Amino acid sequence: MSTSAEINDIEEGLELRPKFDASGLVTCVATDASTGEVLMVAHMNDEALRKTVASGEAWYFSRSRNSLWKKGETSGQVQRVVEMRMDCDQDAIWIRVEQTGAACHTGRRSCFYRKVDAGEGGARLSVVDADRLFDPAAVYGKHS
Amino acid sequence: MSTSAEINDIEEGLELRPKFDASGLVTCVATDASTGEVLMVAHMNDEALRKTVASGEAWYFSRSRNSLWKKGETSGQVQRVVEMRMDCDQDAIWIRVEQTGAACHTGRRSCFYRKVDAGEGGARLSVVDADRLFDPAAVYGKHS
Repeated sequence: MSTSAEINDIEEGLELRPKFDASGLVTCVATDASTGEVLMVAHMNDEALRKTVASGEAWYFSRSRNSLWKKGETSGQVQRVVEMRMDCDQDAIWIRVEQTGAACHTGRRSCFYRKVDAGEGGARLSVVDADRLFDPAAVYGKHS
Repeated sequence: MSTSAEINDIEEGLELRPKFDASGLVTCVATDASTGEVLMVAHMNDEALRKTVASGEAWYFSRSRNSLWKKGETSGQVQRVVEMRMDCDQDAIWIRVEQTGAACHTGRRSCFYRKVDAGEGGARLSVVDADRLFDPAAVYGKHS
């Protein structure tokens, strides 16, 4: 447990003290710097966070591939960081970015291309942005 | 591991199939529906997600208190959901909300009231929004 003084340091201090989870990660939300649209939610480990700050381009840590990756290293769809923010308890980061092309691996501008609506038989999804800005099969190769 | 057909269903289908983590949670990002500002990042379990869809107000699951909570139930700072989006792999939710007062428990409008900048001796934080819209001690009581 954290003491009241420690919590105050984390919440009110000006020292970067990321609170990584058991897997060594913090959550990162990337939004379009001009429209405010949420492009993606991903994770950063300490190295990804350092590289992002140092380079001004977004780096993440992939949980599924268990590896550091620079956003756009395969697809070319890089994110230039306009501003980085830290949240109150320092376990979540918000980056406002200039996104080249599409943020989503499906080729859509944003990963959030479906809306959730309440329905009689339960919540359903509907597509709000079907446009693919690139062809995932061409960029990443076919999944077997 | 998921098969290619299962991944396609999750990414391209219109069925709500949230991919809860080992703790039964998905990440939820709340943004201000009018400004696009990220207000907070929190988590929802299945019940919080259902209650949010059904009520049109944001419910979350607190990992620190290990309990369901309606945003604003103590502080009065409720979030009316204008739109809910699901991401490609269905493990993150984005809600655009009308926020009453402040989203952050520190009294600030947003939890992201500090900016991260690269410095010579490493990254540092600076406060971009110091204004408290309520007094946390008065709302939540003093922390001992």
